[in-house]
Amino acid sequence: MHHPVIILVEPQLAENIGMVARAMANFCLSELRLVAPRNGWPKKGAHSAASGATHILENAKLFATAREAIADLHYVLATTARERGQMKRVFGPDAAMGEAQARIAAGQGVGVLFGRERTGLENDEISLADAIVTFPVDPKFSSLNLAQAVLLMSYEWQRRATGGALPFAGGQQAPPAPREMLVSFFDYIETELEAVNFYPEDKKPIMARNMRDILHRLELSEQDVRTLRGAIRALAEGRRLRNR
Amino acid sequence: MHHPVIILVEPQLAENIGMVARAMANFCLSELRLVAPRNGWPKKGAHSAASGATHILENAKLFATAREAIADLHYVLATTARERGQMKRVFGPDAAMGEAQARIAAGQGVGVLFGRERTGLENDEISLADAIVTFPVDPKFSSLNLAQAVLLMSYEWQRRATGGALPFAGGQQAPPAPREMLVSFFDYIETELEAVNFYPEDKKPIMARNMRDILHRLELSEQDVRTLRGAIRALAEGRRLRNR
Repeated sequence: MHHPVIILVEPQLAENIGMVARAMANFCLSELRLVAPRNGWPKKGAHSAASGATHILENAKLFATAREAIADLHYVLATTARERGQMKRVFGPDAAMGEAQARIAAGQGVGVLFGRERTGLENDEISLADAIVTFPVDPKFSSLNLAQAVLLMSYEWQRRATGGALPFAGGQQAPPAPREMLVSFFDYIETELEAVNFYPEDKKPIMARNMRDILHRLELSEQDVRTLRGAIRALAEGRRLRNR
Repeated sequence: MHHPVIILVEPQLAENIGMVARAMANFCLSELRLVAPRNGWPKKGAHSAASGATHILENAKLFATAREAIADLHYVLATTARERGQMKRVFGPDAAMGEAQARIAAGQGVGVLFGRERTGLENDEISLADAIVTFPVDPKFSSLNLAQAVLLMSYEWQRRATGGALPFAGGQQAPPAPREMLVSFFDYIETELEAVNFYPEDKKPIMARNMRDILHRLELSEQDVRTLRGAIRALAEGRRLRNR
């Protein structure tokens, strides 16, 4: 097992189970275990809520009890929104997945238990776990939807596993323009502005410096300089045409 | 505004809007803006999906366009799963909410744009934003549910805003037992085990040390020592009773 196993204890709603599968697939988890789903399994509606993550539903394993569902694992986390008076370590999702990552790297099987939609995990089920996971929710509105809870754990797993790498990068992809090009662009702007009497008497040095500060902030690429230079030329030449 | 504003552009499904409100309430966000919801607003079914977060739905503001919805803000993030060829910074949810936190602390209004369920934000809408947010998803299964995307941003906001504080702490709440009590407990175990010939000849020192190592790992509190000592006494006296 190279990833944590997600274990739903007596889940009730088909939509939630489908959304759990989708959330797992979003963040590269694949092993789902179901403990005694209410009203049986498979459930109508789970597939459409999974939005394409049907492989996870089809490979989901069924168990009669939480104890059987974790039998082959070495480290088990139990999610709960409520303090249970059990003297276990309590992690947030980020620290929990840090622990999971270290244990999986050491060859251990790791699972995360999620309870029933309305009532969560029973205390006896939590006592099967090594540690508790809870979420940094508003204490006045602490009830997370089941699939949302699975999503946060899956997200934190993936964030740890990939070092937060994103599917695409962004920002300024071209390198900044060479200084010579930039300074020549500044000169060009100042010449054109002088030609239209933009600068009040004696103010040119400070106004030119302010404009250079604005333009420096942009970290312009060569292409950017060409684009802006073209726009300014168009403005200046439009004026010249009108002035003919 | 002390929190980021969540802006849904042309959301379609009532359940998603309700789940968005619930996710926001879980993590202390409250200001929701809706841009031209498909088939009008309010929508049947949103309230029940909000699971109690109805104040957020009732206070949601309606706008005709994304441009109007962000008019009073100072910094705008656009969420997208796809590279758009726009030369903006690209953040993950954690870095994005770090940026949001710094700007809100400086008195700026910050908003996050989320697109339509099927097609996301249009390129023109993304070009209204200062930066892009994307999620560290599996590139082969990158479509996050709308409410799941809002949840991740809300979670990262709250994690930043609270420094990851959890609603309750856990672990060993009582301090470890004083050494004298622990060593006396070790002596007691060793005496009882000697009385039942547990140690093979010459092996006592190493076996006793191994047992002490196991017990040290537990970081026992005074109460823990009393509990275990009681359990061992019960075993030992049960044997004495049988042996009478």
